[in-house]
Amino acid sequence: MSSINGGRRCAACKYLRRRCSEDCILAPYFHPSNPYRFACVHKIFGASNIARMLQHLPVHKRAQAADAMAWEAYWRVQDPVYGSNAIIAHLQHEISKAQNELEMTRAQIAILQTFQQHHNQTQPNQQLQAFWALEDKPLFLPDLPHI
Amino acid sequence: MSSINGGRRCAACKYLRRRCSEDCILAPYFHPSNPYRFACVHKIFGASNIARMLQHLPVHKRAQAADAMAWEAYWRVQDPVYGSNAIIAHLQHEISKAQNELEMTRAQIAILQTFQQHHNQTQPNQQLQAFWALEDKPLFLPDLPHI
Repeated sequence: MSSINGGRRCAACKYLRRRCSEDCILAPYFHPSNPYRFACVHKIFGASNIARMLQHLPVHKRAQAADAMAWEAYWRVQDPVYGSNAIIAHLQHEISKAQNELEMTRAQIAILQTFQQHHNQTQPNQQLQAFWALEDKPLFLPDLPHI
Repeated sequence: MSSINGGRRCAACKYLRRRCSEDCILAPYFHPSNPYRFACVHKIFGASNIARMLQHLPVHKRAQAADAMAWEAYWRVQDPVYGSNAIIAHLQHEISKAQNELEMTRAQIAILQTFQQHHNQTQPNQQLQAFWALEDKPLFLPDLPHI
């Protein structure tokens, strides 16, 4: 019996009602405390497929691969039509939304920057306009003395 | 032999070297012109798993499910560790980048809007300042007549 899980059979061997050997390839990745994880993977990929796919990987990459397959299997159990594609479609929609929002904010920035440039260019003219505006106003001037 | 593929065996039956019956569940979704699609699906899920999963779905949803599974299988063949999770991780990274960029553009907008508000508030004062600036200048005024 595998010593990895403290003398207990791994979730795979427990599910398949078989002895869990010391060299069980699935034991390190399917702890008996999480039987649902293996049930999903078994339902979608099949136990022998999973074991074979892990076997073909270097040991240090197996945990990540088991996690990724468990994740894919979980989503296919939840959504038998789209599986993890539903997540991808959702993320693509989010990206599209974020890109649209980004385009809008960029456009807003462009408008505000144009305004700012215009302001910087026109400020001296505005002061000048203010000057002429004052000049246009009838200033109170005393009558000129007749010289 | 299935009439769906013009009398030819579907990709699944051809791959598995079996007769393709009229009611072959895989024939509508695995055309003989694309043997790689079925090869991927078979390698990752197994032919019987795929057939069983499609059988459990309503007919009108099977094409979408077959596409999604073919897609997942394709990515797992390409990347045996991460599979389609690599795409998800990439998309999540893209979302994170877009959100950061969005935050930056929003901050930029806030700064520009603050500037604009400040400009709107200060413009009348600037005109007033221009007025006082003119007042500070010694205006040429003729001497007042002694009345």
